[in-house]
Amino acid sequence: MNFRAFCSIIHRNICTFWNFARDVFYGPAYERSVRVTTAYLDNSATTKPCRQAVDAVVSALENEWGNPSSLHFSGLEASALLEKSRSAVASSLMCGSDEIYFTSGGTESNNLALYGAAAKMRRYGNRIVSTAVEHPSVYETLSALGKEGFEIVRLPVDGYGRVNENDLFDAVNSETILVTMMYVNNEVGTILPVKALRRAVTRAKAPALIHCDAVQAYGKLEVRPKSLGVDLMTVSSHKIHGPKGAGALYVSRDAALMPRVFGGEQEKKLRPGTQAMPAIAGFGAAAGELKDIKTNLERVTNLRDYMLAELERAGDIAVNSPPDALPYVTNISVLGVKSEPMLNYLSSKGICVSSGSACSKGKKSRVLTEMGLSRERAETPLRISFSRFTSKEEIDYLIEMISQGKKEIRNIR
Amino acid sequence: MNFRAFCSIIHRNICTFWNFARDVFYGPAYERSVRVTTAYLDNSATTKPCRQAVDAVVSALENEWGNPSSLHFSGLEASALLEKSRSAVASSLMCGSDEIYFTSGGTESNNLALYGAAAKMRRYGNRIVSTAVEHPSVYETLSALGKEGFEIVRLPVDGYGRVNENDLFDAVNSETILVTMMYVNNEVGTILPVKALRRAVTRAKAPALIHCDAVQAYGKLEVRPKSLGVDLMTVSSHKIHGPKGAGALYVSRDAALMPRVFGGEQEKKLRPGTQAMPAIAGFGAAAGELKDIKTNLERVTNLRDYMLAELERAGDIAVNSPPDALPYVTNISVLGVKSEPMLNYLSSKGICVSSGSACSKGKKSRVLTEMGLSRERAETPLRISFSRFTSKEEIDYLIEMISQGKKEIRNIR
Repeated sequence: MNFRAFCSIIHRNICTFWNFARDVFYGPAYERSVRVTTAYLDNSATTKPCRQAVDAVVSALENEWGNPSSLHFSGLEASALLEKSRSAVASSLMCGSDEIYFTSGGTESNNLALYGAAAKMRRYGNRIVSTAVEHPSVYETLSALGKEGFEIVRLPVDGYGRVNENDLFDAVNSETILVTMMYVNNEVGTILPVKALRRAVTRAKAPALIHCDAVQAYGKLEVRPKSLGVDLMTVSSHKIHGPKGAGALYVSRDAALMPRVFGGEQEKKLRPGTQAMPAIAGFGAAAGELKDIKTNLERVTNLRDYMLAELERAGDIAVNSPPDALPYVTNISVLGVKSEPMLNYLSSKGICVSSGSACSKGKKSRVLTEMGLSRERAETPLRISFSRFTSKEEIDYLIEMISQGKKEIRNIR
Repeated sequence: MNFRAFCSIIHRNICTFWNFARDVFYGPAYERSVRVTTAYLDNSATTKPCRQAVDAVVSALENEWGNPSSLHFSGLEASALLEKSRSAVASSLMCGSDEIYFTSGGTESNNLALYGAAAKMRRYGNRIVSTAVEHPSVYETLSALGKEGFEIVRLPVDGYGRVNENDLFDAVNSETILVTMMYVNNEVGTILPVKALRRAVTRAKAPALIHCDAVQAYGKLEVRPKSLGVDLMTVSSHKIHGPKGAGALYVSRDAALMPRVFGGEQEKKLRPGTQAMPAIAGFGAAAGELKDIKTNLERVTNLRDYMLAELERAGDIAVNSPPDALPYVTNISVLGVKSEPMLNYLSSKGICVSSGSACSKGKKSRVLTEMGLSRERAETPLRISFSRFTSKEEIDYLIEMISQGKKEIRNIR
């Protein structure tokens, strides 16, 4: 082991020397002059795990691999790691560790929040208010609750995916037991008026719990359930450069839910089952890296503005996202070229973008339909989603390949 | 990178030479003469991830980190890994890949099986037959179903945790829609008569689906849902040296379930949500290592027999497991020493054992109570659970420390 460490030090020194020599002979632009040939611009589907997350997962597998419910030293080590991760996630949301419940991901958190609240609040009323543009894990769960007798009100959206606050105030009444709204739409990046939910509930004197699916906002905006006034909030690890297989539900101390899964005493019996430790450790590490949110937002805004300017200069582009969308998610239509051939063309060139939600695997987008887009625009969407690691070189490569793709795909026809 | 590989080869050569030199000078017994000072004997709570599982997790994080539902190359790579893992788990159960549904673990698989079957079969009847010694994720789920109006019949057990087949045949009637029985009890290792379930259902002409919680049997016995005649079977990754955060539910092609979670189209809509890829990849790798099951069973049987003979020779021991228990799980009572101080003593000596299920965190065992154990024995249980990697040295160390613990704990009193 010591010998390996020694080798590693030598290796590092040689690398440093090589970088230095390269800069002397080729100039410091060497790295930048190497042409980018891949671009991962589907960060709303999933993100690449960051180094800190990978290291945390490996340590959880090799060192703290005990069962966090076990009472011996191996269990206690795992339990300490679990609580450290919980505290990291809590810090990133500026809430208490006791308000964070780990789940397997965003879908489970959303299901737990909605079913758990509906079951708990049933005696106070029957109405659940939401929007027409929620993620399937909220939308479909509400449909299932509808079949169980709940009245589901889905607020419509305008051509930019925006919800009208007056509609919200009209919809929430004194029978409303749950209001659920996503923070940022996953397909077009529209920011929804989550802060208005508490006002609507208070004005209607509704007993409602307020849930926010913040999966697409988390790590990109300063997401604070307490200042937003929500009782329940869903976040996910694999959208913030953590591993897949972990998510969390924030449950305010003032709120209570019925469990949806039954078994042991894990997660205060709200979500039994041995915790997914490696993924949770990676989640905690990735949450710990959510710094400089404002700086990143500025940089990504500039990148997005640059990309749209260049794309519009090339022509045949309609932007489906609103001007005030979260800049990390941009939905455009390449007029005259359907999504599927363009996605395949870009994929063949090493570029990952999507036509919408990964969870609906290429079906026609419900969100764009609800936005009332023309048929042409609804059949040609591309969702380009950034992360804080996205570079200008990737954007340049994308712009070049979209423009090349337009020509080549039209030629084939 | 090449330099690092070079260093690694030199390192390996030096290690080989050192091992050779050690054998020449000290004799090949060197390794064995080094005294063991830790013993992990709580493998029914969780197991240490094997090298193959760790490597698979790391590769899934660093290489195939795309979203398996995405349609671009990054998604396709992840999807290929997902299907490779599914096929490895299916092979280990000798069933089709299309019959394996990935979940977050045993608890979720059990909940999905029971709720999914109850919701699907409700129109055919009302009775669910199970046993009094199931894991909390079955036991508590059935209690919840009982509150929803289902009639839950829990078969009693004898002093060794065994279910009488005649009781089973009496309990299953033509109104029975679900029979669920664990394969191996997690606290005492009793093997339950799972094969009799199909006969009971056929004889009663019941419409019932048959579910088996095989978490503790998987990897230790040849577990084949098809030859057992069960429709649904739960297995878990972290009990077979895979990572926590992945499990599977086998659903026979002839059976159908209602989903319990709603969202995207993953796992054929039976279990939506982005798959926990790193853990699933590790699960697949660990399942691929489940070879030599018979050889391991023989070796572990010998180890268990040796351990019990030595412990009984030292005295003050009652064995709570039946003589024909799965040898991987042994429950003993150290008479006169309550579980907690003994567990703490052993933990302080580097030994991990438990008093029962990790999921119930030190509460009085329902299983031992159902077995009708005397109060003294019910207050003094130790569960010693082996894996295929358990060594005789670990057992020797455990025996020594139990005997030392008995003296020291009694002295303190």
